[in-house]
Amino acid sequence: MPGDTQIVPFPSINLDCGQTLAPVEAAYETYGTLNAAKTNAILIVHAFSGDAHAGGPGGWWESMIGGGKAFDTDKYFVICTNVLGGCRGTTGPGSIDPATGQPFGMNFPVITIGDMVRLQKMVIDHLGITRLLSVAGGSMGGMQALEWAVAYPEAVASAIPIASTARHSAQQIAFNEVGRQAIMADPDWNEGNYYGQKLPGRGLSVARMVGHITYMSDDSMREKFGRRQRDESMFEVESYLRYRGSQFVDRFDANSYLFITKAMDLFDLTAGKTTLAAALERATTRFLVISFTSDWLYPSYQSQEIVNALRRRNHDVAYCELRSSYGHDAFLVEVEEQTDLVRGFLASTLKGRR
Amino acid sequence: MPGDTQIVPFPSINLDCGQTLAPVEAAYETYGTLNAAKTNAILIVHAFSGDAHAGGPGGWWESMIGGGKAFDTDKYFVICTNVLGGCRGTTGPGSIDPATGQPFGMNFPVITIGDMVRLQKMVIDHLGITRLLSVAGGSMGGMQALEWAVAYPEAVASAIPIASTARHSAQQIAFNEVGRQAIMADPDWNEGNYYGQKLPGRGLSVARMVGHITYMSDDSMREKFGRRQRDESMFEVESYLRYRGSQFVDRFDANSYLFITKAMDLFDLTAGKTTLAAALERATTRFLVISFTSDWLYPSYQSQEIVNALRRRNHDVAYCELRSSYGHDAFLVEVEEQTDLVRGFLASTLKGRR
Repeated sequence: MPGDTQIVPFPSINLDCGQTLAPVEAAYETYGTLNAAKTNAILIVHAFSGDAHAGGPGGWWESMIGGGKAFDTDKYFVICTNVLGGCRGTTGPGSIDPATGQPFGMNFPVITIGDMVRLQKMVIDHLGITRLLSVAGGSMGGMQALEWAVAYPEAVASAIPIASTARHSAQQIAFNEVGRQAIMADPDWNEGNYYGQKLPGRGLSVARMVGHITYMSDDSMREKFGRRQRDESMFEVESYLRYRGSQFVDRFDANSYLFITKAMDLFDLTAGKTTLAAALERATTRFLVISFTSDWLYPSYQSQEIVNALRRRNHDVAYCELRSSYGHDAFLVEVEEQTDLVRGFLASTLKGRR
Repeated sequence: MPGDTQIVPFPSINLDCGQTLAPVEAAYETYGTLNAAKTNAILIVHAFSGDAHAGGPGGWWESMIGGGKAFDTDKYFVICTNVLGGCRGTTGPGSIDPATGQPFGMNFPVITIGDMVRLQKMVIDHLGITRLLSVAGGSMGGMQALEWAVAYPEAVASAIPIASTARHSAQQIAFNEVGRQAIMADPDWNEGNYYGQKLPGRGLSVARMVGHITYMSDDSMREKFGRRQRDESMFEVESYLRYRGSQFVDRFDANSYLFITKAMDLFDLTAGKTTLAAALERATTRFLVISFTSDWLYPSYQSQEIVNALRRRNHDVAYCELRSSYGHDAFLVEVEEQTDLVRGFLASTLKGRR
């Protein structure tokens, strides 16, 4: 972890599954300065394989966070936490289970997007912030932003779900399941008990390769690789996927892959409600919803479902489908247009239209 | 193999890689009766995991082959061969290498779509047929149909490539590569030496799961599975994929998976030519090209590239993009509209417009 990541311990957290994790730790980073009134705080929520290191050199959203950037640290106090179940400082399946003195492994409780948000709320409370100016994130980050708006409407003035959904489709579940099966098919996974031993790197690598295909578009893969060959027996795209797969093994925990993807699949904002509009009834936040034309993993229709549901309840929502050839990765890559949208949205939220 | 599958041995076949396979066997089935003039023969070419058993009970294209069906066996003599490199009767990596007395495994030579077609031509010659009325197939079958038109223009009056392409895109190569890596990541794969031992079933199963997702569409998965749960811990779509994956292990050889997908990736009708139109210059066959609106694995634009190239050379080509929600699987499922198209096209080909 980068040196700027801080860890805050809490005595316990109650989970949606009924279990309690005690103790629990959350890793987070902050950028910029919290104003005296504590009204300029923005929570950045990360996608599946992200971490608390969103801003600064090497941060996964470095292009969007910083002085003069979309999330302008000259104006705003930006916070990013590693999600519950993660492997980058926050308690996850690789953490020590106090009951056994061993890593949780598959004994880690089933977690939800709601649990992730609950822990984030504890971090925000710990920082003395009662109301966030905004919660923003792409992909699984967008799910967390939506969950914030519904779970803690009084604690968040605006939400920016990008390239996201209110619930996974069968296809999205299917791709996650392939990744999980690839990991569990690796004998080194050993029912989740591999800590301190050989890691299930082959399975995790295959899982990541599938992921990478779904993050790109047909067009962006054509532009980047085409049918170019690396050597006589290998296409460039094969070499790239193998590299990205093996690289992932060094920074991500296979059990976190299992638990976090499951949390994504289980997420359903409409659960227990008749419609998505009814589910969003409680939200009092402003929304900026963004999707990308070539994103086939989180297609625009999923963002439009959210927008339509919000409009049905007369919520304050702006929606923009940005033209991009980068597929799902666009939320990490398309900086300029996102910056324009986010900057204006945050400024108007700060001006009191919240 | 069904009882109707016949095996024809040949002394040898020269391969594109420069090697020779000697001997080589081809599995094939036939349906209907060859007329005296031998002018009513149609070759059906199968997709990646197909076999010679195309027609009759349980045949993979049973809905399209038979009396009164699209490939009407009351009129036509229909032939289907298992491809070279396969595992359903035709010589493949699971066959005995005469040099060692052991299965070839990874010592099997790299094969191409051209090699598959060369062996099919040997079968056709063996049957005493000098000119096929048509060559038809979906997906990898479409590649073979195109290859036939270019390699043996004098021997084929018409070709019907369905849901296919003149060359794989980076995305198509990428999905195949994930399947290959899943297989090779399985320790039971053992560098391809698993015959008579434990099969690399976990890897092959994961590979097949990826395949199944790409064969369906977002819509068809939603319709078939939605977010329905099989039990508390499993979505229906997960259960389905696991089942289809494990089922595949019983009928398909992992090494055939490696060699056949590689042949698909290597296929490039434009190789050594400046344009696809130039590559299709030699073809003298009539074409019926079919694609499906929801097929994102072999998108319509790939069929349209073929059609445009043929039109540029003033070839006789009919093209139809059929509306379907079934994704790539549509070529196996959308019987009615394909039947109309194929029936008319074959009749006019038989009438001498060839």
